[in-house]
Amino acid sequence: MCAKKVAGVLGATGSVGQRFILLLANHPDFELKRLGASPRSAGKKYGSVVNWKQTDLLPEFAQDLMVTECKAEYFKDCDIVFSGLDADYAGSIEKEFVENGLHVISNAKNYRREDDVPLIVPIVNPEHLSIVENQKRKNNGGFIVCISNCSTAGLVSPLKPLVESFGPIDALTTTTLQAISGAGFSPGVPGIDILDNIIPFISGEEDKMEWETKKILGQVSKDNTQIDLLSDEEIKVSAQCNRVAVSDGHTECISFRFKNQPAPSVEQVKKCLREYECDAYKLKCFSAPKQTIHVLEANDRPQPRLDRNRDAGYGVSVGRIREDPVLDFKMVVLSHNTVIGAAGAGILIAEILLAQKMI
Amino acid sequence: MCAKKVAGVLGATGSVGQRFILLLANHPDFELKRLGASPRSAGKKYGSVVNWKQTDLLPEFAQDLMVTECKAEYFKDCDIVFSGLDADYAGSIEKEFVENGLHVISNAKNYRREDDVPLIVPIVNPEHLSIVENQKRKNNGGFIVCISNCSTAGLVSPLKPLVESFGPIDALTTTTLQAISGAGFSPGVPGIDILDNIIPFISGEEDKMEWETKKILGQVSKDNTQIDLLSDEEIKVSAQCNRVAVSDGHTECISFRFKNQPAPSVEQVKKCLREYECDAYKLKCFSAPKQTIHVLEANDRPQPRLDRNRDAGYGVSVGRIREDPVLDFKMVVLSHNTVIGAAGAGILIAEILLAQKMI
Amino acid sequence: MCAKKVAGVLGATGSVGQRFILLLANHPDFELKRLGASPRSAGKKYGSVVNWKQTDLLPEFAQDLMVTECKAEYFKDCDIVFSGLDADYAGSIEKEFVENGLHVISNAKNYRREDDVPLIVPIVNPEHLSIVENQKRKNNGGFIVCISNCSTAGLVSPLKPLVESFGPIDALTTTTLQAISGAGFSPGVPGIDILDNIIPFISGEEDKMEWETKKILGQVSKDNTQIDLLSDEEIKVSAQCNRVAVSDGHTECISFRFKNQPAPSVEQVKKCLREYECDAYKLKCFSAPKQTIHVLEANDRPQPRLDRNRDAGYGVSVGRIREDPVLDFKMVVLSHNTVIGAAGAGILIAEILLAQKMI
Amino acid sequence: MCAKKVAGVLGATGSVGQRFILLLANHPDFELKRLGASPRSAGKKYGSVVNWKQTDLLPEFAQDLMVTECKAEYFKDCDIVFSGLDADYAGSIEKEFVENGLHVISNAKNYRREDDVPLIVPIVNPEHLSIVENQKRKNNGGFIVCISNCSTAGLVSPLKPLVESFGPIDALTTTTLQAISGAGFSPGVPGIDILDNIIPFISGEEDKMEWETKKILGQVSKDNTQIDLLSDEEIKVSAQCNRVAVSDGHTECISFRFKNQPAPSVEQVKKCLREYECDAYKLKCFSAPKQTIHVLEANDRPQPRLDRNRDAGYGVSVGRIREDPVLDFKMVVLSHNTVIGAAGAGILIAEILLAQKMI
Repeated sequence: MCAKKVAGVLGATGSVGQRFILLLANHPDFELKRLGASPRSAGKKYGSVVNWKQTDLLPEFAQDLMVTECKAEYFKDCDIVFSGLDADYAGSIEKEFVENGLHVISNAKNYRREDDVPLIVPIVNPEHLSIVENQKRKNNGGFIVCISNCSTAGLVSPLKPLVESFGPIDALTTTTLQAISGAGFSPGVPGIDILDNIIPFISGEEDKMEWETKKILGQVSKDNTQIDLLSDEEIKVSAQCNRVAVSDGHTECISFRFKNQPAPSVEQVKKCLREYECDAYKLKCFSAPKQTIHVLEANDRPQPRLDRNRDAGYGVSVGRIREDPVLDFKMVVLSHNTVIGAAGAGILIAEILLAQKMI
Repeated sequence: MCAKKVAGVLGATGSVGQRFILLLANHPDFELKRLGASPRSAGKKYGSVVNWKQTDLLPEFAQDLMVTECKAEYFKDCDIVFSGLDADYAGSIEKEFVENGLHVISNAKNYRREDDVPLIVPIVNPEHLSIVENQKRKNNGGFIVCISNCSTAGLVSPLKPLVESFGPIDALTTTTLQAISGAGFSPGVPGIDILDNIIPFISGEEDKMEWETKKILGQVSKDNTQIDLLSDEEIKVSAQCNRVAVSDGHTECISFRFKNQPAPSVEQVKKCLREYECDAYKLKCFSAPKQTIHVLEANDRPQPRLDRNRDAGYGVSVGRIREDPVLDFKMVVLSHNTVIGAAGAGILIAEILLAQKMI
Repeated sequence: MCAKKVAGVLGATGSVGQRFILLLANHPDFELKRLGASPRSAGKKYGSVVNWKQTDLLPEFAQDLMVTECKAEYFKDCDIVFSGLDADYAGSIEKEFVENGLHVISNAKNYRREDDVPLIVPIVNPEHLSIVENQKRKNNGGFIVCISNCSTAGLVSPLKPLVESFGPIDALTTTTLQAISGAGFSPGVPGIDILDNIIPFISGEEDKMEWETKKILGQVSKDNTQIDLLSDEEIKVSAQCNRVAVSDGHTECISFRFKNQPAPSVEQVKKCLREYECDAYKLKCFSAPKQTIHVLEANDRPQPRLDRNRDAGYGVSVGRIREDPVLDFKMVVLSHNTVIGAAGAGILIAEILLAQKMI
Repeated sequence: MCAKKVAGVLGATGSVGQRFILLLANHPDFELKRLGASPRSAGKKYGSVVNWKQTDLLPEFAQDLMVTECKAEYFKDCDIVFSGLDADYAGSIEKEFVENGLHVISNAKNYRREDDVPLIVPIVNPEHLSIVENQKRKNNGGFIVCISNCSTAGLVSPLKPLVESFGPIDALTTTTLQAISGAGFSPGVPGIDILDNIIPFISGEEDKMEWETKKILGQVSKDNTQIDLLSDEEIKVSAQCNRVAVSDGHTECISFRFKNQPAPSVEQVKKCLREYECDAYKLKCFSAPKQTIHVLEANDRPQPRLDRNRDAGYGVSVGRIREDPVLDFKMVVLSHNTVIGAAGAGILIAEILLAQKMI
């Protein structure tokens, strides 16, 4: 039996950082040893500085871990570093880590649009990870992988197997009903704004969904150095994003049209989704969902409260698959925004990297 | 000064019936004199049988009104009868009323699809009311007018002025986030189903929206006897309906494409909506909104809690008007489901009929 | 007809300030002319600096009012100044206003515990206002009146008439279920903290309730210079405060014991509350509730969503009055926290001062 | 290794029944073999008749179990039968089971007040189970044990160790903020009644809490045939019950006074609660909480969303322990209403019976 890989978490006191810590407690492959946070927390025990707001208790091992500043020198022994940093800080800190040869998996948006940085939904496009080799060459072994935006993760999960089976999608719309946990908690979404209410706007979100979809559904370049995006002509994507009074779980009402006509039947679509088995599962990754896509037949499902925790939040639920009078199909997609849409995705990416001996 | 017209309400103890009663209290044109409900309530004072669940107090005048069964004989002196009956009962009862020469405005779905029955959103298509003359001829003066489905009302409100200005819409999608008050309260939506949750399904709703839109945007036939629907070729409509944790106010994320290209600009669309003045307002109807469509510029509006009561719920709010990568435009529409989407629509229809001397 | 009195509002962009502005729009006695806010808003039009978050639209007259800093020199022409300032700023600013001869009605907590400052719930203890004469003498005509804490207002409203009729209460407990609007909105209560949740703690609230009750139920001193508090021996008060997922309206489950035994009957208590008519109503103040205390007989009332707006939020609802096995009585009290518990109270206090020619 | 005991569930399609099934899946001691429901479900597979509304998937083994009517003849091979029947049916059905020698653990209220029926909160008063021997004698080996009301369970949990350490409590008040899952789901609490609202009434609940507390804190009679209740003179109990917008977890604000004065200190109370170890844990029961009472020091805890799942819902959380100006102490208690307050309690009672060889 191998020794566990050493892991660190940046932004450890924030909402994403707290989730990383929970997911790393008792993990068979990783041992969390380093926690980075702001200078005012540095030098103190984690338990004394964190405002822990998870439904699971703060794991005992983390209570006494000493917090450091987010500098590479304190993370030298880490095989992998998970970043839950705010975008305001992620840019320079993550750069310093990579330049010092560290392996970073980041939930921040800062480097998602770099050509040579893979933007990964681990149950969708792990093959994009291969381009980190190019980063390694330039950074003395260091590299960064970006986790996709939470609502993009749910959107592309059922699309990937469909594209593999039935060819390209040329038009795609999604209207999201997003959980408030996605906004973090300092302050996140004010209660008075969300009780008996909807906020039909999330800053930057629609643009992220429309752009990231084109990268995630894109291809690794022939020379394995970057991702070639789908062009605006290849796929038209339109997103409308709403914040709703749900704690966890993003619901999306999507519709789409295949380029190749005639389109498959509803039954063919369902079968394709049901049979999809993500690479991470084939690689026997610890957190990989046993069932990647759960196809639900009840006409009032998926529902976030009931279905968000399928496969511990790593599985995506799809329901109400039916023909669409405007495009080809419409359906409802539910994904757990803090698991497959954020920290959980980071963990599963690390597991894939490890299974492929890339860390 | 004329005497007020005499009004009756069917299904008086239900949620729609209660709203009719509130809106008729102190109404300048109508005097509510007759209340119909189930046999077990008949013969008793309204105040003693109703489980009043409105935020306004039960009006004093209604407290002591005697409830009768829903039979035309008890409503003979009514100039107008508002029906809030459940679909299970509305079919036969409303038929008996019309055949006995009464004028019925119904919130039930039963007769909406009859060719010679106008399906009305009063701020949108009051010109369709002219076909009741045909019904009158057949029914000894009696006729029925149907109120549209609540979510259809919000959808078509901004479309009507756009079609008038820029020509037909040939593709239209809407994803709704609908309030729970639309489901009534016996039992309506269970609390455990909607707290921290979304229900991505409302029985029959999507079909209603897709069909009713084609009738409401249709034309009165040349011989003024029926409504000619738009065909499936003329307009493709796709609806995805969700129930969310909002008390009142349906939010819809819609997108649409004009038949005539190039499409107008975003500014032209906004200007058209802002300047739209509904006929009911021109007719000086008491409940008509001063501003039919409120065009909001803030990027996070409309919001149901803040905007649903514009013009006492008779005005519709539209925000986030912008170009759509798939169709021409996308935008967010908010309408008050129990006002312009139900009982309030009935009252305004009656006011229009009165202003046009049709009752 | 007299000219209207000139009014100003401090902290005009905050949640309490916004409510003052709404309540002063079209007020028959007051004309709002001056708005004070932070230096970064000063010199700009109100409409351009406020993040308006009310369900009613920003009144047109206020849109173009110029905002100034909160200095007495800009408010010289005001007959009355309403302060919605945060406690961090209220101390020094309100002091400067009073010392410059201005009349201040403040929602802040800073001066509530000063002996010579009346702490007022306008439907409860307007007779305490007489001690401002003493302040006037010391401050060149200037004085300050404090509005009580929002949850205290609901608690003492039914107690006052009971004490007047049946003598002192010697033990009193309250468990509150408080609305989130009471926490303001920058940031107020985070959504993730209140959705599917309760927060069993509001900083400082229990102490305020226990202390303020003793002042409000106290007496004006013989020399009319201060309020004599009830002592800890005269009345024991215990509060337990919770924040719940309600937008507006504080619910309190209270129980209490009279000093004089035998205690009155449940029917006597109900009759006393029903017949209570507050002084503000006798003085014909514009905002005074027609019915001060609404005694509800239905066993599941009052409910915040249904009952908070009685008498425009100036009336208090009391239900479930019954004997208590531990003390004498228990009952449920509902009051509108932003009306009778905050800005609305300030307006009604000003109306009382005006009716009594004290401003 | 022993064979598992055979278990049955009555009312299997209801909300309590569904929870029993979840808790019995993969249970080390019990094997669920029999499911009883209404005649219209009898003869069909469970998976085809249940409207499964749990956050965990319906266990595969239960999917194909055949449902029978609730008659003893179909449950003859059961060592233990868990009843989640509605009170309307529980009376006669449970009687028939007991008379046929079966062992019933019931969540229904019907037999709670029988002298010779133990009313059990398994972490509180398992010693009361001894009186089933008396029932066995009369019923050919059959007996019934009742699970307490959900809100009573939370209330008495911290009281039991306090009474053991510091002597009797003579006055006790509780104001509850109860979750909606406690009302089941057909229809349970309507969404429109609980969104942005509180219902200050739960039918029969206050009486149950006041009465059941006196039985649970009572003693087994000398002859071990019944429970001797505390008298109204020994302990005064007052409950005020509210339904709030929380899915799971009852919060209670309680205060109490000891008979023996001077009362212990706050620190003594905390220490007593922290050190309490329930008998079920000592007996090594599978579901027993490792920590029976979690004493929380943060001033804003316990919160239902964060703390309800301590020890899988079998642990009770207590926070804000402090002196009370009216009685001796006040504090906030949180318990999981569907675990320790309902189905979970039933399972743990069965484990205790088994550990003590009573089944």
